[in-house]
Amino acid sequence: MTNQEVLIVGMGLMGGSLSLAIKERCKNFRVTGVVRSENSKKTAESMHLADEILLDSSLSVSFPWGNYDFIIFSTPVDSVIRYIPMLPKSGKTFITDLGSTKKTIIDAINRHFGEDHRYLSSHPMCGSEFSGPAAAKVDLYDQKLCILTKANSTSIDAYDFIRGFWEQIGCWTLDMDAKEHDETLAYLSHLPHIISTLLVDTAIENETVKKIINATDKPITGGGFRDMSRIAGSNFEMWLSIFRENQTYVYESLLKYRDQLNSILEDFSNGKPLEETRLQSLWNLAKEGKKKIQKANEAD
Amino acid sequence: MTNQEVLIVGMGLMGGSLSLAIKERCKNFRVTGVVRSENSKKTAESMHLADEILLDSSLSVSFPWGNYDFIIFSTPVDSVIRYIPMLPKSGKTFITDLGSTKKTIIDAINRHFGEDHRYLSSHPMCGSEFSGPAAAKVDLYDQKLCILTKANSTSIDAYDFIRGFWEQIGCWTLDMDAKEHDETLAYLSHLPHIISTLLVDTAIENETVKKIINATDKPITGGGFRDMSRIAGSNFEMWLSIFRENQTYVYESLLKYRDQLNSILEDFSNGKPLEETRLQSLWNLAKEGKKKIQKANEAD
Repeated sequence: MTNQEVLIVGMGLMGGSLSLAIKERCKNFRVTGVVRSENSKKTAESMHLADEILLDSSLSVSFPWGNYDFIIFSTPVDSVIRYIPMLPKSGKTFITDLGSTKKTIIDAINRHFGEDHRYLSSHPMCGSEFSGPAAAKVDLYDQKLCILTKANSTSIDAYDFIRGFWEQIGCWTLDMDAKEHDETLAYLSHLPHIISTLLVDTAIENETVKKIINATDKPITGGGFRDMSRIAGSNFEMWLSIFRENQTYVYESLLKYRDQLNSILEDFSNGKPLEETRLQSLWNLAKEGKKKIQKANEAD
Repeated sequence: MTNQEVLIVGMGLMGGSLSLAIKERCKNFRVTGVVRSENSKKTAESMHLADEILLDSSLSVSFPWGNYDFIIFSTPVDSVIRYIPMLPKSGKTFITDLGSTKKTIIDAINRHFGEDHRYLSSHPMCGSEFSGPAAAKVDLYDQKLCILTKANSTSIDAYDFIRGFWEQIGCWTLDMDAKEHDETLAYLSHLPHIISTLLVDTAIENETVKKIINATDKPITGGGFRDMSRIAGSNFEMWLSIFRENQTYVYESLLKYRDQLNSILEDFSNGKPLEETRLQSLWNLAKEGKKKIQKANEAD
């Protein structure tokens, strides 16, 4: 096997962990990591996240992109979109990104490249409430879903190479077009992050809750609240970017969610006794729906 | 140490696990468990959940309640309230329950007992999405919060005995009055269960989500959705009882939550660009609030 030169732009949790996974599983890859600040450069170097670390100020149209065999953008979507017009339109380089939304990235690829290019967009679903290079860990991608989204003229060899790469890293892959991706992710990822954040905001503004939590130095929550608040308020910069890119579908999912909430509020409104049948059907739908979505066969 | 006779009414997840913990940590306790059905009796016996298993049909005013040193009700709140009028008003027996709401239980205790009785209400916060005796496990109570709620005339010796019991089982304890308990739990437990259920209901009704999950036999969610849906649709009978007992505070928490949702919907409404400042403040409030509630010092 000949050596492969890999460029990872962005060495946060996702890029840093990917580099660690590459070093473990793809022995013939040599990784160059790109970071934004001298500070991140120091962290990445001290953690040996890559074979070489560059600052992103060196990236431009004249950067030798074509010298790399494989380029992976691990930055927010708006930044991926700024890099795409700098890329060579032909050559040996396979290109992907880890973008959390797809429509604007696929539009940018379709605008920039001609026929038969080597860019396939990816979305490995393994973010967490942690961020930054210091949070990087070698097994972040183990057994995770990686969604693959083709542009109009993604070549078959690019699809095969990048799909094979993710499988080597430990992911399983699934094809979605940009609309399917963005709409599905609105419901299964973006909406949950908003819901979690608003839950904590609602709880912390209640005077009795405030009084009780001030009265003790230990957590007063059970596992339910802990899980429901894990992703609350995390990584604002990333989420603002995602919400901006996917505003339409997130808005739609919020509207649908409010319909559900309005309907249950009606059930709870004072004076009326709670109706078992309707609540039971909401509970059953969730119990079955959860199994379908998670493909689980758990007990109650 | 003389032997202590303990009666646990209800041998589901909570009662069954408590019995296992007692057998491990309180060697001089002999446990009699009470179940509803022959089926549960068989399960409880085959798992050796207690030294003796009775059917709840034997419980009545003439049941020898006073022969026990310690009675623990581990049944839904509405059932605890039906048992309280059957209890002896004096004698050696310490009594508690594991009820998820407190106002109606405390009212029933105050109505039934005279001055200086031995009933202290408890709420160990260690439920899970699982239920039934088969889910019982010995360490369910380890390092969990147990909230203690006094009635008007709970004796000091009852308070000391029952608090000491929970500490021996591995819990840490916190006193709350009934109002503080029910209002706080509405925000930190009951509201989260509704929110989680409605999230799954919203997601599973979307046509694109349905199409995508039908296209694969693997889960297409990341850790965020998995955590946010863990408690969705769980244990309906228990939750209906909790919602009925605590309808007023749950309704209030739902209203406050909808205020938050309406406000963020305004931000997302089509045509307007997302305003960074306001979203950032919601995110910051959640990030800080989460730390305060969970007493955590985690990184981002």
